[in-house]
Amino acid sequence: MLIVQKYGGTSVANLERIKNVASRIAKYKDEGHDLVVVVSAMAGETDRLINLARQITENPPLRELDLLVSTGEQVSSALLSITLQSMGYPAIALLGFQVPIYTTELFTKAKIKEVGKKKIKEELSRGKIVVVAGFQGITESGDITTLGRGGSDTTAVALAAALKADLCEIYTDVEGVYTADPRIVPQARKLKKISYEEMLEMASAGAKVLEMRSVELAMIYKVPLVVRSSFNNAEGTLITEEDEEMEKVLVSGVTYNRNEARISVYGVPDRPGLAAKLFGPIGEAGIIVDMIIQTARPEGIADMTFTVPKTDFRKAMEIVKNIAREIKAEKVEGDENIAKVSIIGAGMKTHPGVAKKMFETLARHGINIMMISTSEIKISCVIEEKYTELAVRALHEAFNLGEAPFFVEEER
Amino acid sequence: MLIVQKYGGTSVANLERIKNVASRIAKYKDEGHDLVVVVSAMAGETDRLINLARQITENPPLRELDLLVSTGEQVSSALLSITLQSMGYPAIALLGFQVPIYTTELFTKAKIKEVGKKKIKEELSRGKIVVVAGFQGITESGDITTLGRGGSDTTAVALAAALKADLCEIYTDVEGVYTADPRIVPQARKLKKISYEEMLEMASAGAKVLEMRSVELAMIYKVPLVVRSSFNNAEGTLITEEDEEMEKVLVSGVTYNRNEARISVYGVPDRPGLAAKLFGPIGEAGIIVDMIIQTARPEGIADMTFTVPKTDFRKAMEIVKNIAREIKAEKVEGDENIAKVSIIGAGMKTHPGVAKKMFETLARHGINIMMISTSEIKISCVIEEKYTELAVRALHEAFNLGEAPFFVEEER
Repeated sequence: MLIVQKYGGTSVANLERIKNVASRIAKYKDEGHDLVVVVSAMAGETDRLINLARQITENPPLRELDLLVSTGEQVSSALLSITLQSMGYPAIALLGFQVPIYTTELFTKAKIKEVGKKKIKEELSRGKIVVVAGFQGITESGDITTLGRGGSDTTAVALAAALKADLCEIYTDVEGVYTADPRIVPQARKLKKISYEEMLEMASAGAKVLEMRSVELAMIYKVPLVVRSSFNNAEGTLITEEDEEMEKVLVSGVTYNRNEARISVYGVPDRPGLAAKLFGPIGEAGIIVDMIIQTARPEGIADMTFTVPKTDFRKAMEIVKNIAREIKAEKVEGDENIAKVSIIGAGMKTHPGVAKKMFETLARHGINIMMISTSEIKISCVIEEKYTELAVRALHEAFNLGEAPFFVEEER
Repeated sequence: MLIVQKYGGTSVANLERIKNVASRIAKYKDEGHDLVVVVSAMAGETDRLINLARQITENPPLRELDLLVSTGEQVSSALLSITLQSMGYPAIALLGFQVPIYTTELFTKAKIKEVGKKKIKEELSRGKIVVVAGFQGITESGDITTLGRGGSDTTAVALAAALKADLCEIYTDVEGVYTADPRIVPQARKLKKISYEEMLEMASAGAKVLEMRSVELAMIYKVPLVVRSSFNNAEGTLITEEDEEMEKVLVSGVTYNRNEARISVYGVPDRPGLAAKLFGPIGEAGIIVDMIIQTARPEGIADMTFTVPKTDFRKAMEIVKNIAREIKAEKVEGDENIAKVSIIGAGMKTHPGVAKKMFETLARHGINIMMISTSEIKISCVIEEKYTELAVRALHEAFNLGEAPFFVEEER
């Protein structure tokens, strides 16, 4: 098998851990597999480098910031290759420009455009373990770029897609994808398998296991992804195409997100173009709006509620208050103490009873729902922040997520 | 003017010093000069990285070692470019592969083969200060290499030669080239000017201001070199082609080298091929022999004495003892407590009295000379190590080096 493995920053945080990682890789090699290994920077190194630049200036030029920050992965990839070779395993470390991994010119948030396969295939055919510095690429004009947070996951998935790898393993400091955050729900169960779509919804709903971009890529190119821990041998979670079995699972997990704030504009004269008037300037300010709910009152007056990242709350409030004056809205209200709780499951598509059960469960615990949004396989409710843990636990229990997979058939 | 400046590790040791360096560069830019700036790694960083690799294995693979170590200059060049831009000066940092600086494949000790001029000239024509990561290059097949100790000086001189720069300034933590080590001779005087040839002999005789390779390159391509301090505005030393004035200076400086050891083989049957038999295996072991003296006794027996680096002394002694048994030599003797004291001067070529004066001076102070070697513009004597400081001071005084330049005409 050709396997792409990715090791995160905590997995290569020091020389001892790098040695552990090398031993794991060696075991796979001994079993006869071809290996491409993507590494992140040693834990803390990326932040240290960014801090150095920030000490010079609040807004360092992004091209040089990428030049600076990309050394983190350069160091860890070199150290891992040295460790493997010292153990007698032929290895070669490759930087983004050496693969090459071509990206767009958007420094600090570049997107991968194309991955060269020739060099890696050559080295694999010579029996080498190919160690690739994650998170980095190069533009057509020869500038070094980085891919943004979670970029090494994206590097791994992109390589797996290009090389048509049989498997892409993401090694991290958690054992896999859980039915809920184990810090909040001790009964949370590790999922054996989950669909790309569900994983995407989980990521967008606050689960921090994988960045959305890497899951999207895996979905598009049908790369089987496994998330697992580099600190033990527990089996991880396989993220793959939806199959019959998955469809039968009503709810796969409960997630939460406490990083958003709510803004409500009440009493707006309800006429076409209102939403554009409001969200145009917010978008131009670079603020990403998540949920939007508009309700019309009988008298031709509308109320509008939406959520923005907490870090952009003050800026958004300022913009909204100005527009509210202009469009003669009655009142603007903001609330930072909210949380979004979501349930995700492929089986939902065909079983409308799920939403009702979610609302009932929250109501039974006296939790008021401020906003609701749904997708085919997700239902999200905005609630008061102080109820987050209670809501997650209650939903986890209501859908029996702590027990063996809950198939639709078994439901009465 | 187009000026290439190089700043050493102590000059960019922290963000404050980088800011000082940036201010100096800005002043030159304000004066209307075009600037290409080569930087070393922040002081201590190269050793820290090598140590990381050595903690994994005694002999790290050299290709990955270069990949690792080259991050040092990548970081400092990015930080300097960020600092310049934060001060409002357009700048761009370029790595070895981006210039590109093509080298041989000899990792950790690569030699520069070719320097690309197009990219740098483009950026200069856009008004940018070009910051180049020193010490590193790339092979034709795309591997990152480093140039060995003093490599950033070589980068600077090679760039100055390729771009036909008007001047190459080497900024370091000393103010220039002195008539002797100021730590030993308080009266030592900074030289205003010195020829390439003299500087080469000084470097080979133990003066640590510049690596020989960079002086050689400067000499071949006639690049005017200035050595000066980045910590003050004192004028440095200009290293340039020999002119009439220099020829008149009898002795420019006194140097010493305590890093060698002496090995003597006594009573060898004197026949052709003896030297090859002895020095062949030593060379094969990677040991560099410096001085060699062979003397023949009347009875057809020869004595042979030579020096090797102290770090290779034990290994060399072992090899020599084996060969001595084979060729039936009478005795092998080793001595680690030696020093080499040299005087260097372009005027020597035409004035044979210099050697006599050197020997007399040492004799007057009771210092026994064990070995002598001479070149056109240098005389070296090996003496007991404990006399090093005394010898340097005595010679410095004998040739009046502390006073204004000592012209031949003034000598009686």
